[in-house]
Formats: sequence, C-alpha cells, structure tokens
Amino acid sequence: MLDTIDPELGGFARTARDLVLAGGKRLRPTFAYWGWRGVAGPAEPAEPLLPALGALELMHTFALVHDDLMDDSATRRGRPTAHRIFAGRHGERFGNSAAVLIGDLCLVWADQLLARTPVPPATLLEVRARYDRMRVEAVAGQYLDVLGETAPGDWSLERALLVARHKTASYTVQWPLSFGLALAGGCHPSVGEAYRVYGLAVGEAFQLRDDLLGVYGDPAVTGKPAGDDLRTGKPTALLMLARQMARPAQLDELATAGPERQAQIIAETGAPARVEELIRARVAEGLTALAGAPIEPEARATLIELATVATHRPA
Amino acid sequence: MLDTIDPELGGFARTARDLVLAGGKRLRPTFAYWGWRGVAGPAEPAEPLLPALGALELMHTFALVHDDLMDDSATRRGRPTAHRIFAGRHGERFGNSAAVLIGDLCLVWADQLLARTPVPPATLLEVRARYDRMRVEAVAGQYLDVLGETAPGDWSLERALLVARHKTASYTVQWPLSFGLALAGGCHPSVGEAYRVYGLAVGEAFQLRDDLLGVYGDPAVTGKPAGDDLRTGKPTALLMLARQMARPAQLDELATAGPERQAQIIAETGAPARVEELIRARVAEGLTALAGAPIEPEARATLIELATVATHRPA
Repeated sequence: MLDTIDPELGGFARTARDLVLAGGKRLRPTFAYWGWRGVAGPAEPAEPLLPALGALELMHTFALVHDDLMDDSATRRGRPTAHRIFAGRHGERFGNSAAVLIGDLCLVWADQLLARTPVPPATLLEVRARYDRMRVEAVAGQYLDVLGETAPGDWSLERALLVARHKTASYTVQWPLSFGLALAGGCHPSVGEAYRVYGLAVGEAFQLRDDLLGVYGDPAVTGKPAGDDLRTGKPTALLMLARQMARPAQLDELATAGPERQAQIIAETGAPARVEELIRARVAEGLTALAGAPIEPEARATLIELATVATHRPA
Repeated sequence: MLDTIDPELGGFARTARDLVLAGGKRLRPTFAYWGWRGVAGPAEPAEPLLPALGALELMHTFALVHDDLMDDSATRRGRPTAHRIFAGRHGERFGNSAAVLIGDLCLVWADQLLARTPVPPATLLEVRARYDRMRVEAVAGQYLDVLGETAPGDWSLERALLVARHKTASYTVQWPLSFGLALAGGCHPSVGEAYRVYGLAVGEAFQLRDDLLGVYGDPAVTGKPAGDDLRTGKPTALLMLARQMARPAQLDELATAGPERQAQIIAETGAPARVEELIRARVAEGLTALAGAPIEPEARATLIELATVATHRPA
C-alpha cells in the first residue's frame, strides 16, 4: 500500500519487513503459543492464532529497533541495526529519525495484525488489555534501563533486578504466556497464577543469561557486538554483583579499565558464577510453579524444556 | 501504576501527562467530534465518545514528541520539547532516548484509552481500523518529511504537496472525521465521501498555512521557534514555489543565506501570496464537498467555520 503513495515508502516498508524476517529466537510467540496450548488442549487448531503471534513478533521488532537506537548498537541478529542501515543512506541524523519511524511503523502494523485475529470480540478485548499492559511495562522497563546508564554509580543490585523483572521478565515470558492464555478464552485463574510465577522467574533468569552473554558471549553466535553493555556502562545485575564482590583494588580498576579488561576483572570477582547460581534458582522456582498447574502434558513438558533452553543458550 | 514499580517512573509518566495537557489546538478530537455529530444528530449524548477523542490527542502527543526529536525543535506549545526537558536532567543522549520512550508510552496509552470507549464491539473494530490506517499514514508522511530534508535540492512542489497530503491532511482532518463517523456506527457512504474530500482539501490548506507560519509566524503566538523549517532545510511547498518563482540571483542567494534573509527572499519571489491563493482554493473545494452532504445543520456550520479557522490562524 505504501508503495502507491511514493516509491521511497516502499523501500522504507521493505526495510521494516527485512528486520522482522532477519531471524531471532521468536521467544515471545513461542511462549504465547504454549501458554494457549496449555489450556486449549492438543486437538485445537492453532491457525486462528497466527495473526496474534505475528503481532507479538512485530511488536518485538519495534522494541529492538528503538532499543538499538538508544544503545547505538551496530549489529543485531548478525546484521546492521536499523539506524545504521539508514545512516548509510543519508547520514547519522537521518538514520536516527528513520529508526524511530521504523519502530513506530512496526508497532502500528502489530496492532493491525492483532485486529485480524479471528477470535470472539470479548476474547480479543481481553487479549488486547494484556497486550497493552505488556507494552507499558516494556516501555517503562526500557526507561529505567536508559536512566541506569546515566548514573551507573548510584545503581544497586536490587534495582538491576527490578529492571530485569520489568523490562525482560514481564515482557519476554510473563505477558506472552498471559496473552496466549487469554487467546484461549474462558477463565483459568490457577493456570494464570502458575504462568505468572513461572514467567517472572524464568524471564529474570533469561535476563541474567543476557547479562552474561553481553560480556562473555561470542559475537559470531549472539549476532551482537561483544562488550556493548560495558561500553555503555549499563548497570546490569552482573556488574552490580561484581562491584559488591570486588576487592578495593579491583573496584578501582573496574571504574577505569576498557571493556576487555573489565570483563576479566568481573570474572575474577566470582560474579559470573554467582549469576549462574541465581539463574539455576530462578529456573527451579519457575518449574515448581508449573508442576502443580492444571495444564496439558505436552505444554508442560515444552515449557519445562523452554525454561532451560532460554536460560542456558549461546545467543 | 508506574509509580509503584519505581519512583523514577512516576516522574517519567508525569512528564508525558504534562506534555499532553500543555495545550494545543485539539484539532483532531474537534474534527472527530463534528464528524460524529454530523450523523449522530443534535440530541445524542457525546460522553461515550470521550475516551476515543482523548486517544486521538494522546496519539498526537506521540507524533509531536517524535517529530520534535527528529527536527531537534527546542520548544512546542511555548514550552521546552520532551527531548530538551530530559536532556536538561541527564544530558542529550538520555534526552533523545527518553523522548522516544515518552512518545511510545503516549501511543500505548492512546490504545488503552481507545479500548475503553463504550460502543458496540463491531463499531470499535471499525474505529480501530481507521485509526490504524491514520497512524500508518502519519508515520509514512513523517518518513517522507525527514527524507526530504536529506536532499531538499531534489525535491519538487508535487512531492511537497504529496507530503502535506499524507503527513498532515489525512492525519489532521480526513482520518479524524472518518474516525468520528465510524464512532456513530452504521453506514454513511455519501457523508464519508464528502468528509474525505473536505478533509484532504482543508488539511492540505492547513499544512500550507503551517508552512507560512513556520517562516513568518510570531514565536510568541505559535509557541515554536521562528525559522525552524528554514534551519532544517525542510522542502515545504512554500520553499519549492519560491524556488520555481525566483530569479537566478534570488535562487543563488536562497541557497546560501541565513534563515532571516531567506524569509525575505521568499517573500520577494511572491511565493507567499501564491500559497495564500492555494489555501483559498483548497478551502473552497472543501466547502463545496460539504454543501451537498446529508449532515446535521449545526455540524455543517461548524465544519465550515473550522475550515477557515484552521487555515487562517495565527498559531
């Protein structure tokens, strides 16, 4: 449709499409699907869900494009980020503006897709209500994230975990599960509570793994540059723990060293091993919540597997 | 709600609220209201519409906050713009990120408000479908706007009018009217067509007035700095016309002079008078479309008045 207004708009829209199709783990649609399957049962056809699941992924592209702009990240999923692609065409200022707009377009496209989900209007209203709360939390969490970078010295482990909870856990696992559950229609309070506990615990573990990958991950596997978190001074739980555990000399060096040396010091404090413990504890908490919930066996088995896959991953 | 997550988020949300409440002409809710009143009749209570009208204004705050960031405008509605407010707290980089997020938050809030409109689900679905198309056009128009600034020399009058049509006319007048009409429910094809022609014509005239105010408006009245369009090199219809009408010496000087001298040269070419003619012609076209439409007399009278007020305004 945009092509018909001006040929340049076709290029704009195609760049947005390519970003969505560039890969990624598709975790949010996956959690939403299994959240739905958990109560819908094994025989229910999944096809009517597809627009809603696609909307989650489009909404995620919106979040990634805006986040990458804020962090000035160079690559994502192994390719240049949106603002860098457009900066290559007409300079940095244009690149930044176009990335804001690509994100905006993906967010609106997500709404258009969600509207096409063939479920009863009352079901769609409930799905939308959860989707909206998910979006507010994602924006609020990202705000705390960029705020943390302005004063990393004043940040605390508690606050880093709070950001992890609101930026990642609720947005990556808890709300997608809740969104999927709403797509099934009906009222499932005990499943909802189990998903909530599982979602927040596994989602927090997911973010803690992200903290580790951000410092020690292999760029060839993660698709993101190494050391971006250290470069921008993001006060991750990993960094906050390292500060707590560091000897005075290590603490001094952490404040002045470059990203590569910082990564070594953090390892020497023992913080990565402590983060691994936290991850294990969170995953165990999530699995316990799931154990007693009245959900379909295949969904339970897959969610148990996903808790491990999402928190012990190379990228 | 955000306050309960972290006190900093309360401040973030209040800044968004203050931007929405800072004033403005409220043109979009006004057109939507009269679009609805045109078929709803004089006795129908307007209260159920309020969430939907509020959503339009919140969505407009989203657009303004992101636009001001892209244009690096210093003031809006006589107050500092969002990115400048936040830059004052923690520097320019933080200001830019926070403005992206304030815009995102307003867009999601708009959806939450729209969802609370107490109209039948089928009506709300149709309202949303128009709202979504309006948002896609607003984003696409803004993309062409920032693209135009990268190569103002290659731009044309036709393309400037195309941007005016898709960025402003459709988004400020045409879709709000169509949105209001959908809120009334039912099927009104001849009213829809009259609103469409009126909306595009009056909306284009509105943008042409904006071009003139952007160069010759009084900042104390417009609430925006003078000469911002000239400073950013925005290829407005006014500037494109001035280039067409300029003598060679004027054309050379236009390319190198500062904003104040550029404004004088543009006036000397006669382009502002030509833009005034275009405005009059567009308004006349809009009023003709309205004359034959089967709408309520009070709505017709007000839309006739709004066509003039919106296109012959000091701010």
